[in-house]
Amino acid sequence: MGIELKPIGFARVAAKEVPRSWRRSELEGMLIIDDEYVGGLADIEPGQRIVVIFNFHRSPAFSVEFLRQTPPHTGKETGIFSICSPIRPNPVGMSVLEVLEVEGAVVYVKGLDMLDGTPILDIKPHIEHSRG
Amino acid sequence: MGIELKPIGFARVAAKEVPRSWRRSELEGMLIIDDEYVGGLADIEPGQRIVVIFNFHRSPAFSVEFLRQTPPHTGKETGIFSICSPIRPNPVGMSVLEVLEVEGAVVYVKGLDMLDGTPILDIKPHIEHSRG
Repeated sequence: MGIELKPIGFARVAAKEVPRSWRRSELEGMLIIDDEYVGGLADIEPGQRIVVIFNFHRSPAFSVEFLRQTPPHTGKETGIFSICSPIRPNPVGMSVLEVLEVEGAVVYVKGLDMLDGTPILDIKPHIEHSRG
Repeated sequence: MGIELKPIGFARVAAKEVPRSWRRSELEGMLIIDDEYVGGLADIEPGQRIVVIFNFHRSPAFSVEFLRQTPPHTGKETGIFSICSPIRPNPVGMSVLEVLEVEGAVVYVKGLDMLDGTPILDIKPHIEHSRG
């Protein structure tokens, strides 16, 4: 039943402290993509926003006591599927980042909330919700 | 180097044909969450939008010829990281769905673009981008 994923690259961030959320981050850094996937970066342009799916590689294993957590900025106990805590059943994160530049295998981004060395799993176009 | 994920539940969809994208979908269905994670659904409310991370479980294995693909609705060859094709280095999808109702382990949703039986990996709150 397991689904096995493999990093397509890694985040490089100079800061030791990273913001809690991309929504409140101005932090700049790099996504360094593995050579075999660089061809897939072709249409990423400066100024765009991208959705980055990544692995919370430092999070402790999930267990039942983490089904509800109290985020420090709300102080309110909340179900895990309504918050962005890195301690989740599957340690997968999602951030919306601004592209500053693309040079070969390196995507320079702004808005990072990832630790240095974070494994990147996917990059997707960012599409504002506009149904209806 | 592999990252092993495990479904938290599965999508149930009666339709045989599903829309290509949640952006153009009015399809209703269910996310049936495993008992062990039901406590995490506590704060999901009807009318909310949720981000659902899932596994493209029917996609063929990725290989170098899929680094650029030509989506039928654009006819333009585009790098995989700028399109939403299910054939990607890691077969992970993301949709923004509307919550109709939550009853026990079942989240009734609208806007589905997943096949029946799709493994669900995570549910996150939907946050419109509003930096700056």
